Amino acid sequence: MSYDDKKSFAKGKQIYLQPIKNTMIRAGVIGYGYWGPNIVRNFNGHSEIEVVKICDKSADRQKVAKGAFPNSEIVSDADEILKDSSIDAVAIVTPVFAHFPLAKKALENGKHVFIEKPFTTTSSEAKELIDLAAKKDLIIMVDHTFLFTGAVRKMKELVDNGTVGDLYYYDSMRVNLGLFQHDVNVLWDLAPHDISIMQYLVPGLKPKSLNATGSSHFGRGIEDVAYLTVQYDNNFIAHFNANWMSPVKIRQTLLAGSNKMLVWDDVEPDYKIKVYDKGIDISDKSEIYNLLIQYRSGDMSSPKVEQLEALKLETAHFVDAINKKVKPINGGEEGLAVVEILEASDLSIKNGGKEVRL
Amino acid sequence: MSYDDKKSFAKGKQIYLQPIKNTMIRAGVIGYGYWGPNIVRNFNGHSEIEVVKICDKSADRQKVAKGAFPNSEIVSDADEILKDSSIDAVAIVTPVFAHFPLAKKALENGKHVFIEKPFTTTSSEAKELIDLAAKKDLIIMVDHTFLFTGAVRKMKELVDNGTVGDLYYYDSMRVNLGLFQHDVNVLWDLAPHDISIMQYLVPGLKPKSLNATGSSHFGRGIEDVAYLTVQYDNNFIAHFNANWMSPVKIRQTLLAGSNKMLVWDDVEPDYKIKVYDKGIDISDKSEIYNLLIQYRSGDMSSPKVEQLEALKLETAHFVDAINKKVKPINGGEEGLAVVEILEASDLSIKNGGKEVRL
Amino acid sequence: MSYDDKKSFAKGKQIYLQPIKNTMIRAGVIGYGYWGPNIVRNFNGHSEIEVVKICDKSADRQKVAKGAFPNSEIVSDADEILKDSSIDAVAIVTPVFAHFPLAKKALENGKHVFIEKPFTTTSSEAKELIDLAAKKDLIIMVDHTFLFTGAVRKMKELVDNGTVGDLYYYDSMRVNLGLFQHDVNVLWDLAPHDISIMQYLVPGLKPKSLNATGSSHFGRGIEDVAYLTVQYDNNFIAHFNANWMSPVKIRQTLLAGSNKMLVWDDVEPDYKIKVYDKGIDISDKSEIYNLLIQYRSGDMSSPKVEQLEALKLETAHFVDAINKKVKPINGGEEGLAVVEILEASDLSIKNGGKEVRL
Amino acid sequence: MSYDDKKSFAKGKQIYLQPIKNTMIRAGVIGYGYWGPNIVRNFNGHSEIEVVKICDKSADRQKVAKGAFPNSEIVSDADEILKDSSIDAVAIVTPVFAHFPLAKKALENGKHVFIEKPFTTTSSEAKELIDLAAKKDLIIMVDHTFLFTGAVRKMKELVDNGTVGDLYYYDSMRVNLGLFQHDVNVLWDLAPHDISIMQYLVPGLKPKSLNATGSSHFGRGIEDVAYLTVQYDNNFIAHFNANWMSPVKIRQTLLAGSNKMLVWDDVEPDYKIKVYDKGIDISDKSEIYNLLIQYRSGDMSSPKVEQLEALKLETAHFVDAINKKVKPINGGEEGLAVVEILEASDLSIKNGGKEVRL
Repeated sequence: MSYDDKKSFAKGKQIYLQPIKNTMIRAGVIGYGYWGPNIVRNFNGHSEIEVVKICDKSADRQKVAKGAFPNSEIVSDADEILKDSSIDAVAIVTPVFAHFPLAKKALENGKHVFIEKPFTTTSSEAKELIDLAAKKDLIIMVDHTFLFTGAVRKMKELVDNGTVGDLYYYDSMRVNLGLFQHDVNVLWDLAPHDISIMQYLVPGLKPKSLNATGSSHFGRGIEDVAYLTVQYDNNFIAHFNANWMSPVKIRQTLLAGSNKMLVWDDVEPDYKIKVYDKGIDISDKSEIYNLLIQYRSGDMSSPKVEQLEALKLETAHFVDAINKKVKPINGGEEGLAVVEILEASDLSIKNGGKEVRL
Repeated sequence: MSYDDKKSFAKGKQIYLQPIKNTMIRAGVIGYGYWGPNIVRNFNGHSEIEVVKICDKSADRQKVAKGAFPNSEIVSDADEILKDSSIDAVAIVTPVFAHFPLAKKALENGKHVFIEKPFTTTSSEAKELIDLAAKKDLIIMVDHTFLFTGAVRKMKELVDNGTVGDLYYYDSMRVNLGLFQHDVNVLWDLAPHDISIMQYLVPGLKPKSLNATGSSHFGRGIEDVAYLTVQYDNNFIAHFNANWMSPVKIRQTLLAGSNKMLVWDDVEPDYKIKVYDKGIDISDKSEIYNLLIQYRSGDMSSPKVEQLEALKLETAHFVDAINKKVKPINGGEEGLAVVEILEASDLSIKNGGKEVRL
Repeated sequence: MSYDDKKSFAKGKQIYLQPIKNTMIRAGVIGYGYWGPNIVRNFNGHSEIEVVKICDKSADRQKVAKGAFPNSEIVSDADEILKDSSIDAVAIVTPVFAHFPLAKKALENGKHVFIEKPFTTTSSEAKELIDLAAKKDLIIMVDHTFLFTGAVRKMKELVDNGTVGDLYYYDSMRVNLGLFQHDVNVLWDLAPHDISIMQYLVPGLKPKSLNATGSSHFGRGIEDVAYLTVQYDNNFIAHFNANWMSPVKIRQTLLAGSNKMLVWDDVEPDYKIKVYDKGIDISDKSEIYNLLIQYRSGDMSSPKVEQLEALKLETAHFVDAINKKVKPINGGEEGLAVVEILEASDLSIKNGGKEVRL
Repeated sequence: MSYDDKKSFAKGKQIYLQPIKNTMIRAGVIGYGYWGPNIVRNFNGHSEIEVVKICDKSADRQKVAKGAFPNSEIVSDADEILKDSSIDAVAIVTPVFAHFPLAKKALENGKHVFIEKPFTTTSSEAKELIDLAAKKDLIIMVDHTFLFTGAVRKMKELVDNGTVGDLYYYDSMRVNLGLFQHDVNVLWDLAPHDISIMQYLVPGLKPKSLNATGSSHFGRGIEDVAYLTVQYDNNFIAHFNANWMSPVKIRQTLLAGSNKMLVWDDVEPDYKIKVYDKGIDISDKSEIYNLLIQYRSGDMSSPKVEQLEALKLETAHFVDAINKKVKPINGGEEGLAVVEILEASDLSIKNGGKEVRL
């Protein structure tokens, strides 16, 4: 996808929603847990892709899959998908540790890959997969589903068209009484959403360094509460508050710029995005100690946000990426960029929150 | 104040509210800006303390003071208060940089000191004042007003009586489109509230180290957005989000324990404290990798919170401290503990967020 | 269902959730529009009832039904269900005007009836169906789904166990930008929910009279905004605000008693019920003109509310009513009581809001 | 005030805020209870009116008045104000029953009158005062303070400039755990706010009839919960829900028109007015039974609302009315229109909610 295509995507032109007729993409889905059924349902709901095989090791989950999708073959061994030459694309919806070996085998067998976030457990794994896909001319799409929500697409539009102005900071809080993961900490679990969103909104800015802190309360050494600060050029700063032990569900993001300030409250049923005509006006930057800082406080508005299911748009984007050979907005590179931050956050936490250069 | 007295204070017995009749305390107030009038009004509203002199350098403010408090003498030189032998106590309500010299002179002249937060600009200044007060047998009270609100006193009660259980974390967010200060950054401006509250709630825990990050957007080198993490024993972790550039006013604190989790939303007009019977039950801590983590989600309750003006209670506590010679809950040591954290946060920010041992 | 059974239902003992093994009830569902699929899914989700035939006149809807429920026979003529002697029970999920003829035929053919709200278009129709069912020893259940929500069951418990005390008033607001109906006004569309809930909560009170007012804005003579007041004994008063033209969705009910006051906000995701220890204390009722009225304002609490799907519980209650021959809490009589109020509200609206005796 | 003046007022031109220099208006204030001090403070805060005498029968209140306003003479007999020929204007801030005799005497003695709402206890009293004022060329201003709030002025602007479009309904809810009045019911106490606001917003519409219902729970025959519906031409309908016994404070008004729908939530600290681009589009009104009704759901916006104290603006409007001889927007006629509705509501409640023609 060219830069212009990306822009038109954000502006809601949705060129990818009118697919050119192609041959049907035959897909296999590996992992039929909490999220797998949504993938299968959305793939099958698109006219150019169909799920021909579903794999899960659990007999119970196989039974559930059989009942819900009687037209798909249910298998227990991933190789029945990975080595099936009639299959064009594989969705990998497993725990993180299994992402790399499955994705590698899928690419080696010439299949496009749709893979859960976080992409991989290390950046070197991510790079290997990206190289392999490039060599084989295959698509990797990392399932950063939030990029396809109406709320994020609206924020992208407001940043791209200059409404927000120069960016000052991004501050997100994503907390709840959550599902403790066994293999990754709370940052690897929750922050990929916010990191991928922020990188999508501000693609021009490059992270310079980060600090992460956190705490583990149940003797497992896996942080259940964690904080991450990422420093960018131009004093742009991003902060992520992730927590599996909050009594209340908060999903709130502040994005402030020189023209407008946005608040995205994803717990609100409607009107998730609020745009505030609030800010600070500096009268004279030359005299540093005599700045006249004035507050501006005007109207608030809340633009209508599309209510389409995000995974439906993402499926269309995946089909489009395969059929039109365009780079997705959530390809391997975007997935890698998230993993690099998470990897560095581990290093920072292990070293008392020290600054890690990126 | 003994530990038992502190406890009874938190439980709302308010022994200090029935003052023994003493001679009237004669007070001087230095600084009549935004907060000064509230101090004068509350001091004068108490039957055992009266403001005999008010000092401000601005002729405009002097005029306002004269109109509002015709019975006080209005002066422009602090020495007219500090060297007035008929004055027993001085309230210092000036910018931070002036705290130390004024407080030192006041103590040297045998006056009790009521002083704005943050106590001083360095911990060595704070220690010098504490030593001086001890030597002279004088009271220092640092104006951590929030400790006297109904909400904080209720939280104190819930922590002290075991309702909350073992503490896991404290997470506060205090943001708004705020008054940029000229001499201190956003942490020195806003975090003293939250740090003093947290230390009041969990006096047994000692901070081990901290990390702070932030950003300055207007070329002054004064952070307008900043984040602070403080690590304690037993994996208790505290986090403070302070921001002068938020489009919305958020004053929200999460305090989670093994029995209950609290949310304090200070923007709510009523029912500021919510107590959630939510948490995590661990079935077996011996097998680290096979923990059975179960969620608990029960009732929520919101206890009635007293609506008395905090500064009225604090004034009574100041009078009581002077007349009964008891240590206040917000004395010099408590003010020093806040300054030590702020001082260390400066060091951390200047060094890329590195861990600073306390 | 005896009074004790009803009580134990409200208290959540849910004796009906452990059904005795019986032969499978064979059901037919007439009407497969917006709500029909939920009925079919829930009936089929219960181990003792299965939907063997689904009827809809629309070829489109038949196709959708076929796809979703391949094991049911899809028919276009209701008689294929009503005259099928192998069918035990019929769910009527059609527009209101068709309720009576379909239900009558179903009962005449010996089938139990599960029927959408409002029960019928006139009280005489409702009475005829109740008599017919009694004669044939058949069950009628009117689909007042809200009675089976966790929120309503919790309110019932709080009223029955005396928490609320003597009841003062019930005030509900159910407004949204709604689906304009072609055959009934906004009261017939929305108020059955609230009327049935109120009657369930306060079964001992009998309505004395009512007044209704409203307005129609699109030249059809069908009120899209309407208000209903119902007077009861002991000065208990109920008020219903129903509106298809509100920009915001409000579903809020106040229920005040002498001990506690409840607020039920059904738009809240969690903590839908709040119990306020607020009220009025009268010191002396003998001296009418010198009453000392005092306000009481204490804690608020929000009890945990069960999150089970209401229609699942209602299905179990229907099966139970058939198998155990008990009167359901939402039988024909309860449906009739709602229709009587709606019928009287029409009379009142047509006569300028005049009082109609019940 | 001409129609154009009224319009410019609503549009915020605030011509009355730049008063021409006149001689100082000398005012007396009768009644120094809950609201009186605000009147005195605002009158004294204006450069062209001063309170020279304050009257209250209670020795306690006299003492409070003396302390707060040492420059006013404090008296216990209203005649000392009413018969003082040096006084130009009288503010009557007493219980309702005393309004008429005091206002009559004030007008007879040639004084302008600023009077609390509701204006009088009967419409004939109101008419007598209006006639007397006209004859004497004096100003009557009824203290419908809400008309001078930023929120109401913004709504007025949105109605007048066509933003809202043709009006469909006005629906207000004003409930709280309130101060039971001894002489008037909850409609007389709370509804004057909402009735005066509605009449200000839609001056062109004339009420045709009304119905009121209510209930009294403490044996005094004074309704503490009441509902009022007023019918207008063009199917515009207004509804008022007033309640002294609600556990929560709700002050919410819906105003729907053909273009936009407004929600005014007066409990919100900021952004009290929300404008929804929501509504209904009718494709063909000719075919009544085949209307195509379509929903429209677009952006929401919340215009900035002025935060000036309403009573300050109202004071300026009173001074302006006196000095410029213009009719105020809240004159005797406007006060009478409110009393006529309240009087008719009494008649309706006493007659079982029957329709009363206006």
